[in-house]
Parts: sequence; structure tokens; C-alpha cells
Amino acid sequence: MMHFNTKMLIRSLQKAKNAQYVFRNASSGLPDLTKDRYPVNRADFATLGDKHLQFFRDLLGPQRVITDPAECEGYNVDWIKAVRGYSTCVLKPKTTEEVSKILSFCNDHTVAVCPQGGNTGLVGGSVPVFDEVVLCTSQMNTIYDINDTSGVLICQAGCVLESLDEALAEHGLMMPLDLGAKGSCHIGGNVSTNAGGLRLLRYGNLHGNVLGIEAVKPDGQIIDLLSTLKKDNTGFHLKHLFIGSEGSLGVVTKVAIHCVPKPKAVNLAFVGLPSFENVLKVLKRAKRDLGEILASCEMIDESTLEVCTGNLKLRSPIPEYPFYMLIETHGSNNAHDEEKLNGFLGDVMDSGLVLDGTVTNEPSKMKNIWDLRERITEGFILDGYVFKYDVSLPIEQFYSLVPVFRQRLSNHPDIVRITGYGHLGDGNIHFQVSCKQFSREILEKIEPFVYEYTSRLKGSISAEHGIGFRKPKYMKYSKSPESIAIMKDLKKMFDPKGILNPYKVLPP
Amino acid sequence: MMHFNTKMLIRSLQKAKNAQYVFRNASSGLPDLTKDRYPVNRADFATLGDKHLQFFRDLLGPQRVITDPAECEGYNVDWIKAVRGYSTCVLKPKTTEEVSKILSFCNDHTVAVCPQGGNTGLVGGSVPVFDEVVLCTSQMNTIYDINDTSGVLICQAGCVLESLDEALAEHGLMMPLDLGAKGSCHIGGNVSTNAGGLRLLRYGNLHGNVLGIEAVKPDGQIIDLLSTLKKDNTGFHLKHLFIGSEGSLGVVTKVAIHCVPKPKAVNLAFVGLPSFENVLKVLKRAKRDLGEILASCEMIDESTLEVCTGNLKLRSPIPEYPFYMLIETHGSNNAHDEEKLNGFLGDVMDSGLVLDGTVTNEPSKMKNIWDLRERITEGFILDGYVFKYDVSLPIEQFYSLVPVFRQRLSNHPDIVRITGYGHLGDGNIHFQVSCKQFSREILEKIEPFVYEYTSRLKGSISAEHGIGFRKPKYMKYSKSPESIAIMKDLKKMFDPKGILNPYKVLPP
Repeated sequence: MMHFNTKMLIRSLQKAKNAQYVFRNASSGLPDLTKDRYPVNRADFATLGDKHLQFFRDLLGPQRVITDPAECEGYNVDWIKAVRGYSTCVLKPKTTEEVSKILSFCNDHTVAVCPQGGNTGLVGGSVPVFDEVVLCTSQMNTIYDINDTSGVLICQAGCVLESLDEALAEHGLMMPLDLGAKGSCHIGGNVSTNAGGLRLLRYGNLHGNVLGIEAVKPDGQIIDLLSTLKKDNTGFHLKHLFIGSEGSLGVVTKVAIHCVPKPKAVNLAFVGLPSFENVLKVLKRAKRDLGEILASCEMIDESTLEVCTGNLKLRSPIPEYPFYMLIETHGSNNAHDEEKLNGFLGDVMDSGLVLDGTVTNEPSKMKNIWDLRERITEGFILDGYVFKYDVSLPIEQFYSLVPVFRQRLSNHPDIVRITGYGHLGDGNIHFQVSCKQFSREILEKIEPFVYEYTSRLKGSISAEHGIGFRKPKYMKYSKSPESIAIMKDLKKMFDPKGILNPYKVLPP
Repeated sequence: MMHFNTKMLIRSLQKAKNAQYVFRNASSGLPDLTKDRYPVNRADFATLGDKHLQFFRDLLGPQRVITDPAECEGYNVDWIKAVRGYSTCVLKPKTTEEVSKILSFCNDHTVAVCPQGGNTGLVGGSVPVFDEVVLCTSQMNTIYDINDTSGVLICQAGCVLESLDEALAEHGLMMPLDLGAKGSCHIGGNVSTNAGGLRLLRYGNLHGNVLGIEAVKPDGQIIDLLSTLKKDNTGFHLKHLFIGSEGSLGVVTKVAIHCVPKPKAVNLAFVGLPSFENVLKVLKRAKRDLGEILASCEMIDESTLEVCTGNLKLRSPIPEYPFYMLIETHGSNNAHDEEKLNGFLGDVMDSGLVLDGTVTNEPSKMKNIWDLRERITEGFILDGYVFKYDVSLPIEQFYSLVPVFRQRLSNHPDIVRITGYGHLGDGNIHFQVSCKQFSREILEKIEPFVYEYTSRLKGSISAEHGIGFRKPKYMKYSKSPESIAIMKDLKKMFDPKGILNPYKVLPP
């Protein structure tokens, strides 16, 4: 195992932590405007004037048309502060009909629109690039129905994921997806970006779990695909066009999701391992021995964990090891689950695959362990600037980017750490190069090499974060020219004027 | 419980069994030609001539261009003998490139093409309506890869579902789907029709399980979407356009599927119940108590079971009851599974919900029980003529069609039985009205009422069988005009000349 001299870098980080980030404007704490940083030109959309604002105010009332520049700011910048638009108008519709009227008007007047949920995206998809009107779903947060027998939830797009989980818990149900951003992200945004997350291994993806959606096309037409049925083979399966197209083809306004029974027994193991080779072996045994109760199988490397233990001062329940795994089980009988889990853990300890570990079903202890995984992104922000990649790779090569880049970028003084962690069970790694400050030199050593490398291994250059504003030109590394041509034809068909979430997803 | 005097009807059936079916041509055993029975006009496609045949023979060699009328017959008629075309040419490509060349040529020469897998469809989607060239995938049956670690299978479209399951078993894996037609159906057809089946309850649908496909557009362009990754958010999720569009937008040539571990423990319970009310209660308890090991939950009503015990002379392991349920568990630890299952069965017996039952994990006994479920369609053919509907309904109304129609059609002398059975756990019932012979009078009492009824309850008029040739005009009962308009735009975009599987899926 090659170590990246992390301790030394962590120390230098501690000193650098309060320094000004190059990617931010020191006076305001905000990053530069996207238009000033990236080579992108504003398309020929209308500039917002009084007649537009008057229409919006007549429709929504003055309270739900935000034009105060200070208040608009939060809607213009993404949460990792990487991109920033300068919209002067944020709209907060409450109903599908209001969304329809807004889009119809904007389409007629060639006003560009940026749909926004919880604004937790990581690829710049949820904030304006220039002055697009922000259509925010935060007031569309009605839960219409939770059916105990069928497990179907129907709600508006602006419901926060965690709130949905809380409401479902009262019915003995649980959302099939879970992510670190659950306290802020909206279900409409989850669906629009085909969010993956921590439980996909067990409960599958949104293309499988979303039973129906309602969406509004850019011309204002409402498309009712809000089926609540598990099986419905009546024509082309249109809902999937809206799942994962990042608000390019329409604004998702309602969703029906097949929820799962809230597990009666939840157990979490946190283990330390000496090598990635062992990580792979433990994954294979977990699948075999835990079978139907395996719910999550995450990996964290040593240097990643240090952003939590070092930057965020979280405590790890076990000493330092080159690799860690979080293995969570969900089941209906705790005695059975514990027997399976203890058998599995005994086996991987006895065989020397795992060096150390802890297992718990106490909620507070589980939360402490999950914090070590879920707060990683937050912890990295304190490193300075993070080049963050979210790729799928064949499982055998899951971790290969890290040693490759440690070699490629060795001895660069600005680098804090090069690390990998993520959804091992799904073959989806988050790969980071963190630096004291933004460096174009480092960027150019990473990109496009990281995409070329991923493409050579037939991986995906964006496993779950999407394309957004920051990756359209790299889509070619995961999609063929023929596929991209079809996407462009679809965009033309759904949005001939291109008003919806422009400059994003599709390559120019 | 209202009983439909089934015994009496069974007796009359036994006498009628050898009579000539009105829907068949007595001399040949074949149904009338579709063009003579249904009000449909041939579109302005080319009629096949020597130049076309010469091209096909040059491309495929004479062995894989079938023009012998007797040999073509089997490709012209569906297996329930409800529709029949008169194609004079069946093509059997082996490679994607051959499919591409065939479609490109047919598109250039405006020759209509009917793609065909195992020809096990139930809505007339897989046979020609007129003289469309049949593009049969039976020789595209190569398995490219089975990955033990990731569980990913990559194969050609013409692989038979059961053969795939056999190949996977050697790797400790299993297909996520299973259906009665498994011995004949092709995986390409399964994907193209979004087949559901018996394990969907546990393993989810094909939109969730298919990782990638390769398809050929009607103009011959090969679309490579053959990802093997569980997560890939790089642009619009195009593969879903081909899953369930019944060969209207392209011919699926390869698939990558996420397969599941073959369960170490399989147990099957077959129970008798006094009422549908009890069926619903047992479903709810099965979900609660069997949780993660529940793999199938099927319901059969008394009158349906009699097509197996009466028509097919199969033996039921328990006496007669108004309702039966098949409950199968898949797990990784047989002791745990048996404990859960025995606890559940003890509970539903003690509480009087279930009157009788048998449980087994012996493969031969399980097969005998599954035969009672899987051979129902075959058994119904012996009733004479079957009006067969495949609908999704809200679970509370799952069985409601049967009493409604027993009342609506009471005292009609031609009726053998009115029954329901199916995928209870997925809300998908197969509803039948079987008659001694085809009767337009009965048909008109069933349709469109059955669709109107389903639509009023927000059900699906085709849960898993699709639209095919027989249901386009009823699609409106499950899909809005806006959705149908988008489907038509998509068809125009993918297939401007309309050569691929014409007269099907989309309403005229």
C-alpha cells in the first residue's frame, strides 16, 4: 500500500484552513460568477423586465416572487460554491397549474428557466448560469397519500427527502433511497437527477421505484404519468425520460414512489482492513453470507476518513487502517440478522480479511458511524479546494484511480490528499484530489485524463451526480455520438426554444 | 361468496372440448387471417419481390431466409392462435450488423418489418398483421459474459430465458425475472415488452434490472447503450425508450442484466382461503412477517384452479377452497427462512385466515404446485375460447372484476367460467371470461366495459402483456391524450417511415 503522506498534509491543511479560497470572492464569501470563470456565452433569451415580473406577481402574489438581490443570492450559488449565476427573480409556485402557467409564459416570451429543488447538486445543474429565472419547488411540499397496504407514496416535487421518510415511518414504511443531503434535497430533484445514494444496493434505483410522475413540459403542457401501479405496460414508458434528465425536458411536479417496509432490525458494522484486495473479498462474502439482508456496503479509505476525524473532529470507533467498510443490514427478525451478521463477521475476522471492527444496533452509535460517511463532502470543503469526481468503474478496478493519480500527481506541493470512498456495492466511487487552493495546473493534470481513464475501463464519468453545467463536454466519454444525437433530438422535441435549464446536460 | 356454478360448466366443457372453435379455421387448425377478422388496412409498404429476397439471401445466405410457406406459418400465428399474418419471408440474423443491414435496406425500400422473439406474446405484438417481413432473433443466442462478482449477464437478444437461468445457475446466479413462457421466450422480447412475471415482487422490474441494451433503429443505426454499470447518470436515460415499447422504436439486439444470487433456500406454501378479504389480510401479514424473504405472492380463485385440475388433470395438494395463494420465499439461510415461514403460517392458520395449506422445499413438489399456476393459460385454451384481460388494479379492488362480471354476464349459456388469478403482490390480475366458443355478443358485453371499469379505478388496462395489435384503441383508458401525442412524436422521430412493427402499440 502506498500512502500519500497524509499526516503531513493534514498538518499543512490545519494552517491553511482559514486562508482565502481562490475560487471564492474574499469580500463576500462567494465564488466568481460562472460567466466570468467558464467559457460560456449567454443565449438569446429575453432579459427580465417589468412586464414579465408583473405577470409573475399577478400569478403568484408578491410574496412568492423574490427579486431582492440579497435573497436571490442563495438561489444563485450551489452549496459547494463552485458555480454562481445572477438571476434577479426566484419564483415559488405552489401548484402544478402555477408551474404550467409560468413555463407557458416563459416559453412564449423566450425567458430561460432554471428549475431548482433543494439545491444540493454537485455538478452545477441546479443554479442559473446567467440570469435564468429560478423556479424553486420549495413550496410544493404536500404529501397527498401514503398507502399502508401498497406502500405507495404520492407527493409534490418539493417535499424534502428526510421529511418524507419521517412521514412514512408512521406507516411502517421507508423511502427506497437515502443520501447525505436528505435534510435538504427535494424528491423532485432526486427524481430529476436519478439520485442513487446509500441504499440502492438493496432497494434498487429510481427507474425501478418511481411508479409515476407528473411533469410540465417547457411549453406549459401538463403530462400526467402519475400512475401508482407496479405494472403498467400501456405504451412507451415516458416517465423515464424525466427521471435523470436533470430538468432539461420538463419540470417534475408530482411523484408516486413505491416505498419499502421500514426494517424491524437494523445493524451496522464498521470494520478496518489492510488492503483493497481484502475489501473486494469481504464484499463478495457479504453478498454471499448476508444475502437478502445486506442493505449498504460502503468503503472509505484512510485518507478520506481523516477529513472527518481531522477536519471535522469526528471520532472513529476503531483505530486507523488503510481501508474501512460500513456494512448495514435491514431485516425483519433481529435474532436472524444478528446470527447472520455475527457469522459473517466472525468469518472475515478469523480469516484475517478484516483487522478490527465494531458492530451496533444502537441508533446513536449508528448515527456516529454514518456521520463518518455522510459528512465527508462537508469535511473536504475545509481542505481548501476539492476536485471531486463521481465515477462508476468495474468492481475489480474500483479503487484504481487513487494509486494512478497518487503517482501522476506526486510531489505537487498544493495537494492535500488524493482519496477514494463510496458505494462499493454499486461500483460507484467518489474520487477526490483536494488542494490548499484551486490550481489550473492540477486541474489540467486531472482532466480529461480521469475521464479518459474511466472511459477506457467502460466506466461512467458520472455515476450518480449527473452532468449538470460542469460535465456536458465530457459526456462523450460515456455516451456514443449516436446516443448524444438522440438526446439532442429529444431536447428539440420537448423544448424547441431551449428555455429549460439551458447550458446544461447536453454538449453544445 | 357468490359461486359461478363452476362444476356444471366444467361438465358442459368436457363435452364441448373437441368442438370446432369459431376463432379457428376447422380445416387447418389455424385462426382466420387478421386482415379478414379485424378492421385494419394495409399501409403503403412495398410488397416483397425478387430484388428484396436477393438482398436478404446475399446477406444471410439461403438457410437463414425462410420463404417456404409451411415453414413461415409458425411465425405468422401467435401461440394462443388469436391473430395471424401472411408473411412470406422470415429472416434469421445472427449479428447486430446483420440486423442493421436488414433494417437499413427495409427502411430504404419501405419494407415493413415485424421483430419476433419467442413469439409468446398475448396481444398479437409478435406476429405480422399483413405481410411484414419477420425478423426473428432465434439465432442471436450468444451469452457473452457472466460476471460472478458483479452479477452482470451480457447476452444477445435471442437467448431463451430458461437457458439463461440454467447458465447463471452454474455461477450461483439467477435471472431477476421468471414467467410461465420461460422455456420459449427470448430475453430481447422480455425487454422489449417489459415482461413482469412471478418474481417482480421481490426482484423488481426490468426498468430497474436492465443495465444496458444495444438496439438498432429502424434506419439501421446501431445504438450502443450496453452499459454494465449499476449507476450511470450521463445524460438522458435512453435505454428505457426501448424497454416496453414492443419493438416500435428499435430492435433490441443485446442486453446487460443485473442478476441476483441464486437463493440457497427456497420454500413454497400453497394455502386455501375462504374469501378474498382473507387473501388481502394474508398478503399484508406475508409482507410484514416474511419481509425480505418474500419472493412471490400469487392468488388463484377456485374456478381458475379447475382449468388445471379439470382440463389438464393436474392434482392439487389440498382440497377445494374459494381462493388459493402461492407464497414462495427465497433466502440465504434455510433455518431462518423456515422459522419465519412456519411462524407466519402458524399465525394465519391459528387466526382462521387460512383454512388449509401445504408447504415444501422439495423441488419436484414445488414444481407440481407451480404447474397449477403456470399452466393456467394452457388450461384455459381447452375451455373453447377465452376473453383474457391483464389489468392492474388498486389492491383493495384486485378481485372486483370477477363478481362484477359474474353479475353482468349471468345466465349466458355459452360462458364456461369467469375467473381471476395472478400477481397479487403486484396488484396485477389476469381476468378471464371463457366460453364454449367465440361470441361477439359476449365480447360486446365485456369490452369496452372492462377497460372503462379499470380506468375508473385508475388501473392499467395492460399490466404486463402490453398493447400489441389488439389493444391500441384502448390505450386511452390508461394514458392521457398528451402522453399518447408524445408517444406518436417519438415514433415519428425514431421511425419516420413507420416500417417497424406497424399497426401496433400506438392508436391510429
